[in-house]
Amino acid sequence: MAGLDTCLPLTVDSIHTAHRLISPYIHHTPVLTSKTLDRIASTPQERSALKGTLFEDQEPAKPVFRLYFKCENFQKIGAFKARGAFHAVLRLCSELGLEEVRKRGVTTHSSGNHAQALALAAATLNVPAHIVMPSISTSSKIAGTKAYNARVLFSGSTEPERVSVVNEVIRETGAILVPPYDHPDIILGQGTAALELEKQVAALMKDVDTEVDIKKDHPLNAVITPLGGGGLLAGTATYFSNTPSTHVFGAEPSFQGGDDGRRGLAAGSRIPTVSTLTIADGLRTPVGEINWTVISDQKKVRGVFAVTEDQIKDAMKLVLERMKLVIEPSAAVPLAVVLFEEKFRAIAEKEGGEKGWDVGVIFSGGNTTVEAICNLHGNR
Amino acid sequence: MAGLDTCLPLTVDSIHTAHRLISPYIHHTPVLTSKTLDRIASTPQERSALKGTLFEDQEPAKPVFRLYFKCENFQKIGAFKARGAFHAVLRLCSELGLEEVRKRGVTTHSSGNHAQALALAAATLNVPAHIVMPSISTSSKIAGTKAYNARVLFSGSTEPERVSVVNEVIRETGAILVPPYDHPDIILGQGTAALELEKQVAALMKDVDTEVDIKKDHPLNAVITPLGGGGLLAGTATYFSNTPSTHVFGAEPSFQGGDDGRRGLAAGSRIPTVSTLTIADGLRTPVGEINWTVISDQKKVRGVFAVTEDQIKDAMKLVLERMKLVIEPSAAVPLAVVLFEEKFRAIAEKEGGEKGWDVGVIFSGGNTTVEAICNLHGNR
Repeated sequence: MAGLDTCLPLTVDSIHTAHRLISPYIHHTPVLTSKTLDRIASTPQERSALKGTLFEDQEPAKPVFRLYFKCENFQKIGAFKARGAFHAVLRLCSELGLEEVRKRGVTTHSSGNHAQALALAAATLNVPAHIVMPSISTSSKIAGTKAYNARVLFSGSTEPERVSVVNEVIRETGAILVPPYDHPDIILGQGTAALELEKQVAALMKDVDTEVDIKKDHPLNAVITPLGGGGLLAGTATYFSNTPSTHVFGAEPSFQGGDDGRRGLAAGSRIPTVSTLTIADGLRTPVGEINWTVISDQKKVRGVFAVTEDQIKDAMKLVLERMKLVIEPSAAVPLAVVLFEEKFRAIAEKEGGEKGWDVGVIFSGGNTTVEAICNLHGNR
Repeated sequence: MAGLDTCLPLTVDSIHTAHRLISPYIHHTPVLTSKTLDRIASTPQERSALKGTLFEDQEPAKPVFRLYFKCENFQKIGAFKARGAFHAVLRLCSELGLEEVRKRGVTTHSSGNHAQALALAAATLNVPAHIVMPSISTSSKIAGTKAYNARVLFSGSTEPERVSVVNEVIRETGAILVPPYDHPDIILGQGTAALELEKQVAALMKDVDTEVDIKKDHPLNAVITPLGGGGLLAGTATYFSNTPSTHVFGAEPSFQGGDDGRRGLAAGSRIPTVSTLTIADGLRTPVGEINWTVISDQKKVRGVFAVTEDQIKDAMKLVLERMKLVIEPSAAVPLAVVLFEEKFRAIAEKEGGEKGWDVGVIFSGGNTTVEAICNLHGNR
């Protein structure tokens, strides 16, 4: 990976620079809206839904939402991870020279979207990629990674087993490690989704609203992204760090302690290990160290909220049936917060008032299958 | 319905007029592309897939396709039917006067997308709607229609039973019948999807292609739409009737004789009754009479092709998993033809050659549920 000492700083300007660099290689994914989802999100929850929560005896919040969905499920390889991977590899090439990177190759360990993202970025730039995948990975994910001409190596499924194979690859080939989230180049790459989102929402508003002249350049009251390793949330928070009118929130699964970000913020320190089998399988990792420096900065991230497995399923189902979009469970977590997390909804009601909030929601990816959807929704 | 004698003629100009009329009321749905789908469509079928067909002993066709998907699954009410319904009701209002139409109301019988489309168009213009639905309709469809404030009446499920309730409504209220497809106003309304598609593809090509100057205004070699009652196909064929370089095709399910359009063309006359339980439930109806006059005109529709239930499911699954879009089975039928109908593929190879064909594919709707998707794909 590009040396930490020569990395661009985590600033808005660096995200603009990253965007110019990766622009030719990524999809500028659309921002979609849905009056149906706005209506559902702006309807108070049933009192019965709040039973057993801190809000049991309170009047359900009455927030007003206009939601803007950034569709990274349409991104190359089906997830935002393509942004960080392209940025990391392009930065390596500009730092070490294309020939050197082509000679050495890149490597990572991942069973998920980062594996395919790095394989694609490497293949596009004619750089060899050595991807270490746990041997229990599903065959479709292995095939997906091989389809980009990556060399796939197998390992055991624990972190030490994976790292040991990666280290072997590095010793053998001199390949350069590209981590999935804990690096400034990855964070800046993922932040480009937030940059596009803000500009697209501003353009949408200018199209529609001919009267009001406010907020034009910074139209969003809030943005909410999934939080796993923290690349997307840290990148988004960095992009909005000069825009105090836009609050940045993270969204996590609460299942089996998957809300390590939320718990870490409450405890005042990063939680380094997580062990959850949440259906939001992209969010099973602990927050990275560099990511934590951004996410724990209250001026950058306003809060992190967690939702249950059933709430994630309900949100995913609404997106499938009402918006006609396929998203993976991890991508449904921010919308689940908007729909079901009463504390978040109370903040939006209090601060948004009758006028309401314009909220950007990042649909982080769409890599699922009909089989997985049916397994998920079949037995409820 | 507006009188047949005062209807606009079935011409390109009339579709432009229809588009201006309905434009404020409909979504201008996006056109999406997919390199993955292009690659799959441009790969010859396996020889084994052609076993038992007329092409069993032949070399599989090697067409080259660039596909442009018109996403009417994102249309209001989730299907293109909103176009025809708005056009029909707006034309009624301009012919009879808004007050008269509001006094009398509109009516139809439908268990599907036309019910919701007419309910929405009527509600938008403050016109009462009386929708006759078979009492066996799924509760979600009934609820969907009622959500637009329509009065829902129930009938038996056979055609005579439905018509009898509609006639009662008309006697009682003076409501005006808006049929689902067999009327020029409906055909012209549906044709506006083809108009948008052509303009959007031309704009996409101008963005990408800075060298070649040909085909700019008429960029498509072919357009393929589902064929049920024939509103969408007749409208599309009417729109392209002055553009001989764009061939228009229809796509049907072959199950239980659902390919009445194809069989009618072969026999030289319209087949007036169909009885199929194909999964493409929007295409279970016979072709309408006025629709037939367009579809049977060889200068307007080049051909109609049929596919099996499994081919429809395979196409639908590809769209879900690779394009991350939810479409209903009827909407997957044209793509199934492109992927699996060897006669169509042979024509595209022969006429497109190495350069290939730019093909518009209309995703007609997305009204399905997670439950229906799992029922469909669960037992194979």
